[in-house]
Amino acid sequence: MTNEGTNLDPWYDHYAQRTAGLAASEVRALFAVASRPEVVSLAGGMPFVSALPRELVAAAMERALALHGPVALQYGSGQGSPRIREQILEVMALEGISASADDVVVTTGSQHALELLAKLFLDPGDVVLAEGPSYVTALVVFRSFQAEVVHIAMDDHGMVPESLRDAIVRVRAAGGRIKLLYTVPTFHNPAGVTLSWQRRMEILEIARAHDILVIEDNPYGLLYFDAPPPHAMRSVEREGVVYLGTFSKTLAPGMRVGWALAPHAVREKLVLANEAAVLSPSSFSQTVVSEYLASADWRGQIATFRDVYRERRDAMLAALAEHLPGLRWTVPNGWFYVWLSLPPNLDSKAMLPRAVKELVAYTPGTAFYADGDGRTAMRLSFCYPTPDYIREGIRRLATVINGELELLNEFSQTAPLRSVRAERGVVSPPPNLG
Amino acid sequence: MTNEGTNLDPWYDHYAQRTAGLAASEVRALFAVASRPEVVSLAGGMPFVSALPRELVAAAMERALALHGPVALQYGSGQGSPRIREQILEVMALEGISASADDVVVTTGSQHALELLAKLFLDPGDVVLAEGPSYVTALVVFRSFQAEVVHIAMDDHGMVPESLRDAIVRVRAAGGRIKLLYTVPTFHNPAGVTLSWQRRMEILEIARAHDILVIEDNPYGLLYFDAPPPHAMRSVEREGVVYLGTFSKTLAPGMRVGWALAPHAVREKLVLANEAAVLSPSSFSQTVVSEYLASADWRGQIATFRDVYRERRDAMLAALAEHLPGLRWTVPNGWFYVWLSLPPNLDSKAMLPRAVKELVAYTPGTAFYADGDGRTAMRLSFCYPTPDYIREGIRRLATVINGELELLNEFSQTAPLRSVRAERGVVSPPPNLG
Repeated sequence: MTNEGTNLDPWYDHYAQRTAGLAASEVRALFAVASRPEVVSLAGGMPFVSALPRELVAAAMERALALHGPVALQYGSGQGSPRIREQILEVMALEGISASADDVVVTTGSQHALELLAKLFLDPGDVVLAEGPSYVTALVVFRSFQAEVVHIAMDDHGMVPESLRDAIVRVRAAGGRIKLLYTVPTFHNPAGVTLSWQRRMEILEIARAHDILVIEDNPYGLLYFDAPPPHAMRSVEREGVVYLGTFSKTLAPGMRVGWALAPHAVREKLVLANEAAVLSPSSFSQTVVSEYLASADWRGQIATFRDVYRERRDAMLAALAEHLPGLRWTVPNGWFYVWLSLPPNLDSKAMLPRAVKELVAYTPGTAFYADGDGRTAMRLSFCYPTPDYIREGIRRLATVINGELELLNEFSQTAPLRSVRAERGVVSPPPNLG
Repeated sequence: MTNEGTNLDPWYDHYAQRTAGLAASEVRALFAVASRPEVVSLAGGMPFVSALPRELVAAAMERALALHGPVALQYGSGQGSPRIREQILEVMALEGISASADDVVVTTGSQHALELLAKLFLDPGDVVLAEGPSYVTALVVFRSFQAEVVHIAMDDHGMVPESLRDAIVRVRAAGGRIKLLYTVPTFHNPAGVTLSWQRRMEILEIARAHDILVIEDNPYGLLYFDAPPPHAMRSVEREGVVYLGTFSKTLAPGMRVGWALAPHAVREKLVLANEAAVLSPSSFSQTVVSEYLASADWRGQIATFRDVYRERRDAMLAALAEHLPGLRWTVPNGWFYVWLSLPPNLDSKAMLPRAVKELVAYTPGTAFYADGDGRTAMRLSFCYPTPDYIREGIRRLATVINGELELLNEFSQTAPLRSVRAERGVVSPPPNLG
C-alpha cells in the first residue's frame, strides 16, 4: 500500500491486513516512464505481437463466431472448455508432458492461476521458496496473501540445489511453514538462465523428500533460440508439481488465456476458486484461441517468434560486449531477459532517473527480490524494441554507467574504479545471481 | 471444500485455512443436471445470447482487429483501457450516475471486482451484511475470505431498513467487525424485487451513520420490463459506495468485461489487486466491447433484450397463476428471477431429485443463504427457456409440488394440507423473504 493520501481515505482503517503487502511494483511505476516514445525501454516484458500476422487472428475470430457463436458469447465451465483443454495437452506434449485434460484448469492468463494457488495454499506467515531474483508479480501475489518469500540462490544452471536444501533446513529450524516452491526453470524471468536437467531431477527429489509442492511456471519454454531446453519438471513428476502455461507468449497476451495442470485434488479446488473469482474464464477468448490452434500453423508461428527474438537477443549481447565489456551478464537461450551485474559501488535503482534522462529504461534488480537484494543488478529486456533501438539503448546505458563510475571516482577516498569500457568482457559464464 | 477423496489428497494438510469455506455451490452442482436437454431448466442464470445478432459482434471484432490490432492483442493497463472507461460512463449515466473515468476499474466480469473487494477488505471473522436471500457466488466469495455473512430481511420493496439497523446493533454488540454492506438493489438475484427510492436513501443514511462501505451490485438495472427502476444508489453517494456493473447482461457474458466504480483511494487499491491477480484485464475483450459500443445501436439491443425477457417473465407469471395458484411468488420488473415460496412443510432441496425426475430443475432457496435458511423457497429463472418451455416447466413443477403435498398428507398425523391447486392465487404482494 502506498502511503500517499491515506489520511484522505475515509476507508483507511477498513482494509484487510493483507493490503499492507499490496504495493505498486517498481516495474509498474516504470511503465509510465518507459512509454514515452523517445525512451528506449529495456524495462518491459511485452511480446512483439506485431510479429503475429493479423489475418491469422482474424480468421480464428471469424470461425469462432460463425461455428461456435452461442458458446463463445455465453458463460462457460469454471474449468475451461473441454476442447481447449485437449488442445493444451498438445502444446504441453512439446515439452514432454503427458496428462489428462481433466487435470487442466483454464485461467485468465497464467498469472491468475498463480493468484488462485496463493489463495488456496497461503495462510499469513507461510513461507514460499523462490529463486533470487524471482518474477516480480509472483512476489506481489505471495506478499498479498501475507506469505514470506525466502530466496534460493541461482547460478548459470539455475537454482542451486544446495541452497534449496539449506533454506529448507533453516526455515524449518526457525519454525517456518513452507508451503510452496515457486520456480521458473526455463529462460528465467529475470535471470535469463535455464535449470539443467540434472538439477531438475535433484530439485524434484528435494521437494519430494521435504513434502513441498512445486509450482513450475513455464510461460517461455517454447521460445528457445538455439537447442530446445530440457523437458518440463512436470514431465517426470505428476503429484508434486502444479505446472503453469499460457498463450500470452506463443500467441497474444491480450487474450488472457493461460492454464494450470495440477494434481487431481488440487485441480478440484482450483476450479472452485476460479468460479468464485470470475465464474468462468472468457469463453470468447478461449474459442478464438481454440480456432487459432485448430486452423493456423501455430507451431510455425512459434518458429517465427523465435527468429524475431533471436535476432534481438543477438543484438543485445553484441551491444553489451561492445559498450560494456567490463561487466557480466547472463546469456539466455530463449525468451526476453538478460541479467546485468554492475560494479558493486553502483545502485541500479538510484541510477534509474539518470538513465531515463539519457532516454533509456531498465528494471532495477531490487524489483525481483522480496528482501531488498538486487541493488547492483538490473534486468534488460530485448523483446520489444527493434535491434537498432536495442543497440542504441545499450549505448545510452553504457554512457550512464560510465558517468556514474566517473562521478564515484571523483568523490571516492579509495583507489579509483576503472571505467568498465577498459575491462575485458566476461560474457559467460554468468555470475552467481543469488 | 468437499470431503470426498480428501484422504487421497497428498496436499490435504497444506491448504490455507480459507479453503475450508470454498465449497461447490448448490447451483454449480445443478449445472450438470440441468444441461440434459430433456430437462426444462429454471435453475440457471444464463442470458439468452441468441437474441444478440451475430453480425453486430462480428463487425465489432473486425473493427477491433483492423483498427486496434496491436493494442487488442497486447497486455494493457491494470485499470482497463481509457477508452472503455469513458464509454462505461455513458452506460452508467443511464442510471443517473455521474463519475470520472479515473475512478473506473475494468475487471474480468463484475464477479472479479467482488473477489478483489473481498480480498481488499475482509480479514477472517469480519462481517458482511447482505440481503437474505443473496447472490450465491457473492456468498461463496465472502466465505472464501473467511468472513461471516449476516443476512438482512427483505420484503417486496427490497431490504428492510429496520432489519439493517437491528443487525448492525446486534453484530456490534457481539463484538463483530462489519466491513461491507453487499446489496443488489435492482431486480434482486434471487428475490426478484427492487429497492424503492425512499429505502435507497434510508439505507445510504444508515450506512453513512455507521461508517459502513456499500457494495452496490447492479448487473441488471437496464433490463427492466415496465417502468425504469429507481436510479442507482451511487447516483447520490460518491464516497460511501463501490458500484459494480457488467456487460454480461447487456451484451454477452463470454466477454468477461465488468467494472467497479469506486471512491478514489479504494480504486487505487483495486487496480493493484487487479494487476496482482491478472496483470491486466483482457485487451482483446475490451477492444471488441469498445467497438461494439462505438458502432452498434447498443441501446436498441438492450430494448430487444427487454422484449425477449418480458415475454418470458409474463409466461412464467401466467403459468404460476394457472398451475400453482395457492403459492406466493415475487413479480420482477426486470431481469430473470422469481422467488417462489412453498408451503412450510415442503423442503425445496429435498424435493429437487424428484423434480429432476419429472424433468424440471430449479435452484433450492438454501443456496442463497449463508445460514441454512431458505428451505421452503426456490428461485425460478425465466431467462433461457422459450415461453413454451417455461409453461411446461411450471406445469411439471406443479406436479412435483402437489405430489409432495399428497405424500405428506398420507403420512401426516395432523390435519391434511390442501393441494395448492385448490387455493386462491396470491400473486402480489410477495412474501417477506427474510
